[in-house]
Amino acid sequence: MITPQSSLRRSERSRRATLDAALELCTEKGYGRVTVEAIAARAGVSKKTIYRWWTSKGAVLLEAFTDAFVGATPFVDTGDIARDLRTHINSAVRLTSTTPYGPAYAGILSEMHYDDALAEAVQEQLVGPRFAAAEARLRKAREQGQIPADADLPLAVEMLYGPVYYRHVLRKPPQDEATVASLVDHVLRSLGADPGSPG
Amino acid sequence: MITPQSSLRRSERSRRATLDAALELCTEKGYGRVTVEAIAARAGVSKKTIYRWWTSKGAVLLEAFTDAFVGATPFVDTGDIARDLRTHINSAVRLTSTTPYGPAYAGILSEMHYDDALAEAVQEQLVGPRFAAAEARLRKAREQGQIPADADLPLAVEMLYGPVYYRHVLRKPPQDEATVASLVDHVLRSLGADPGSPG
Repeated sequence: MITPQSSLRRSERSRRATLDAALELCTEKGYGRVTVEAIAARAGVSKKTIYRWWTSKGAVLLEAFTDAFVGATPFVDTGDIARDLRTHINSAVRLTSTTPYGPAYAGILSEMHYDDALAEAVQEQLVGPRFAAAEARLRKAREQGQIPADADLPLAVEMLYGPVYYRHVLRKPPQDEATVASLVDHVLRSLGADPGSPG
Repeated sequence: MITPQSSLRRSERSRRATLDAALELCTEKGYGRVTVEAIAARAGVSKKTIYRWWTSKGAVLLEAFTDAFVGATPFVDTGDIARDLRTHINSAVRLTSTTPYGPAYAGILSEMHYDDALAEAVQEQLVGPRFAAAEARLRKAREQGQIPADADLPLAVEMLYGPVYYRHVLRKPPQDEATVASLVDHVLRSLGADPGSPG
């Protein structure tokens, strides 16, 4: 008998199988040659099942990337904003510069120029929430007096993420940890904070 | 009689016709549906002529974009680094957020993930020289004492361009002039400069 619970379990299993199949195919064939048919075959689910949950292969890969990104780049709070931003940005750089996630995200960014629904999904599922989380972590630091009261937090978030996207989309070598540390120090100093002595 | 000079003139005319045709088609059909055949037909040149000068439609559009970008975003030197960076970044934002250049560059950035030759051309023809020009302008400001001697200029260039790319590739609304002014002030402050009193 199929209970709601076992149905839910099966859905989560199919979901994970679909995401994993999409990431594998992206690694093997490159984003451009991945098809929903191939994802379905690899995952052992029907095309109909995939289209019930996602609008396109881009949407499947966006969910796979978002799952990994959220898991790999938490906004920790050790009480030291410079340290926590370094941890976060280093994780973001690592994820977006390694297979399968880096090439998958590059493919998503390419496709969203032609696919308005995907562009909206990127904003709603990934960029919007992550931007808000980064701003929230900075706001907490501001409340704790580590950042001046008049600091422009959205600008700070763009100054932190901007250089990461810059290198990613231009296929330049990713930032090493020393460069990330320097970037974080520069952004905090630009806000009028003293990155050397948090708190 | 075809002299070297008239041949050169005709080449420049064909070159310009080809670049203009590619930009027009990109606006009308979207980057993805532009073909070298259609560019040739619109420009009134042969496909062979196009392939003698360029390796792909991406290479044609890169040259068209680079011509426009270099023309629209000179590194002026009024002696005021903050003002000159604002002028430059505002021009870059305007060009990359208006038709035909914005969509053309978005197409180029998409395609260069799958086309190694195009990625190399973007670096050699556009990004490398513009990065060097930005760094040179900052170096001059450093020599004039507007920026501290130990300032990390490549990092500054990435902090300036990064947020512009961030919004462009994520299809967010482009920076307005107030945001660009604030970005420039923040980057200069991050270097230890006082953006309020240049010189």
